[in-house]
Amino acid sequence: MIRNGMPLAQLNTPALLIDLKRVEANLARGITVANAAGVALRPHTKTHKSPYFARRQLMAGAHGLTVAKVSEAEVFAEAGFDDLFIANTIYGAEKARRVRRLAERVSLAVGVDHIEQVRAFSHAMERAGAPLAVMIEVDTGARRGGVDPQEAAALAGAVAGLPGLAVKGVYTYEGYTYSAPDRAALVATERQAQAVLIAAGQAVGEAAGVVPVISAGSTPGLLSGAGYLPGITEIRPGTYIFLDAAQADLAGGLEHCAATVLATVVSRPRPDRAILDAGSKALTSDVRAGGVCKTTGHGLLPDFGLVIARLSEEHGVIEGPGVERLAVGQKVRVVPNHICPVVNLFNEMVLIRDGLVVDVLPVAARGRLQ
Amino acid sequence: MIRNGMPLAQLNTPALLIDLKRVEANLARGITVANAAGVALRPHTKTHKSPYFARRQLMAGAHGLTVAKVSEAEVFAEAGFDDLFIANTIYGAEKARRVRRLAERVSLAVGVDHIEQVRAFSHAMERAGAPLAVMIEVDTGARRGGVDPQEAAALAGAVAGLPGLAVKGVYTYEGYTYSAPDRAALVATERQAQAVLIAAGQAVGEAAGVVPVISAGSTPGLLSGAGYLPGITEIRPGTYIFLDAAQADLAGGLEHCAATVLATVVSRPRPDRAILDAGSKALTSDVRAGGVCKTTGHGLLPDFGLVIARLSEEHGVIEGPGVERLAVGQKVRVVPNHICPVVNLFNEMVLIRDGLVVDVLPVAARGRLQ
Repeated sequence: MIRNGMPLAQLNTPALLIDLKRVEANLARGITVANAAGVALRPHTKTHKSPYFARRQLMAGAHGLTVAKVSEAEVFAEAGFDDLFIANTIYGAEKARRVRRLAERVSLAVGVDHIEQVRAFSHAMERAGAPLAVMIEVDTGARRGGVDPQEAAALAGAVAGLPGLAVKGVYTYEGYTYSAPDRAALVATERQAQAVLIAAGQAVGEAAGVVPVISAGSTPGLLSGAGYLPGITEIRPGTYIFLDAAQADLAGGLEHCAATVLATVVSRPRPDRAILDAGSKALTSDVRAGGVCKTTGHGLLPDFGLVIARLSEEHGVIEGPGVERLAVGQKVRVVPNHICPVVNLFNEMVLIRDGLVVDVLPVAARGRLQ
Repeated sequence: MIRNGMPLAQLNTPALLIDLKRVEANLARGITVANAAGVALRPHTKTHKSPYFARRQLMAGAHGLTVAKVSEAEVFAEAGFDDLFIANTIYGAEKARRVRRLAERVSLAVGVDHIEQVRAFSHAMERAGAPLAVMIEVDTGARRGGVDPQEAAALAGAVAGLPGLAVKGVYTYEGYTYSAPDRAALVATERQAQAVLIAAGQAVGEAAGVVPVISAGSTPGLLSGAGYLPGITEIRPGTYIFLDAAQADLAGGLEHCAATVLATVVSRPRPDRAILDAGSKALTSDVRAGGVCKTTGHGLLPDFGLVIARLSEEHGVIEGPGVERLAVGQKVRVVPNHICPVVNLFNEMVLIRDGLVVDVLPVAARGRLQ
């Protein structure tokens, strides 16, 4: 049983710990950067999947929320959040019907990058009371979804020409900046992506006869110091609330990482090897092998200067110099490489402050895949 | 709403589908190999995390179940299974108390590879009605947990000398056979691991004065054709029930894979690119880049001869020749690289037979990390 005021050493492991002081500092940094640039902050909830942290984000100055799935939007709408953007292309009659029901309850926008999605949404919104807000996804270099920038206006025109829909603006995911080789290259890449997005957004605004929302923003962009070009009106960072090993350098060090996995040294089978009870089912297999957000191994132990060398499903293996400081039964804190999918593995988060437990929260939107 | 008899094309996506005919064939193969070698089959439930499939395994001839965590053991004990082996080293007073409570309800064995774990279990079992069965983990080459083979007898002697414990035997995880370069090397590696385990087991039996259980067995070992050397008494394969892209070649082809992720083509942003609504939060980032269980990319689409080239959290990206056959809205089946952590991402499994839905099951032990 977890109790208020419990020291971390008494927690069962593996456990996902969230340091509230660090969260507060990270939220403050996010809104400071957004305000300095005059852009609205619409954080991506994929990182925490929790109404509690969404509320903290709004209270810290955010304007609305971003989600990735219809089911995530439903969780946050149910929890009382009334301004949601599903920043992901979706397709299917059942999902379109759920989008319509959500749009009747909250201010909702959806992303599109293909005429078939547009037609499906228009069909679902037939004779709706108000049109569904549509954001055109623009590919500024991520090579996943998004129209080519020069095709955004044509798709916006198609949206504007169909019943039940209203063009709201454009968005991009410029997360490929992760792999820029250094901070200068990251800044240059981020600015290039913003410039392309702004041009596409202006064309979309003209094509649809609206003042467009122009929405960029990944956490590397937020932390890079690139700032936001005039024309960007909104940003959607996700990881900035917790940070992780991959983004720690950009953020100024591991001491900014708010999320750690508490693990126990369950064995020392050899003098030069320690085994943690956190494997890939607690830390994921995500690696960041290159670029400015590079990290090594499968998780860092900043208190010991150690790195998890290998993972299997239930084992984290640490080897080499420094391992002698880890004894069986010892509890250690691991900074994961990539926090978003890690949160998605845990049913609950243990909130801590000054090294003591203050609360336990469900990861409410965990596993919301549809 | 999922209904009995529903065609797959009507399912919402992403969904985890389990083909029962293939499961039945895989279970039959598992027990056939075990019976031919005269070894008991104690399947690892980490793959399916479900009492339903555990029951199917027992009905197909398995002798008991393997689990990785105390919390998983609790799920299966609660579901009525009375012969469980926690094949993983665990440490902590709270877990030791739960192990004692489990041992009072069911036939339970635990794995150890360090004297500190042994002392903790002995302490927890003080004045218990019956001793806790202990299996010594032997490292036959996996380089994670397990004592060196020549140290197994000494640890068994320590177990035998402490109250509340009874030596049951030895076990190994020889999953490193995955990375053998070809099937001949896999067979040789598997046999070598078995020989080392048998020798350690015989020494343990002598040290503790018992006829030892000698427990080996990963799915590559089961599928390799290596068989089991005289002296091996038990095997613990997990993946064999569902199989996956990495093990399909060993099993005789992708048509043996019982678990697939149904995904929708949500976009075709360019002529040479398709986007699926299954990313790393549905398929994991697990890769198998080398060895006899090598696969490429992040999931296979056998119906199209296509491979997922890249994943982000919510996107599966397919590129290149053949993509023109994928249209927006089309549903496709993906064979994951590694099925065990994929099952652990889904809240439920859709059971299918002859291409129609027959049932939906919760992944009961999903996310049981402690």
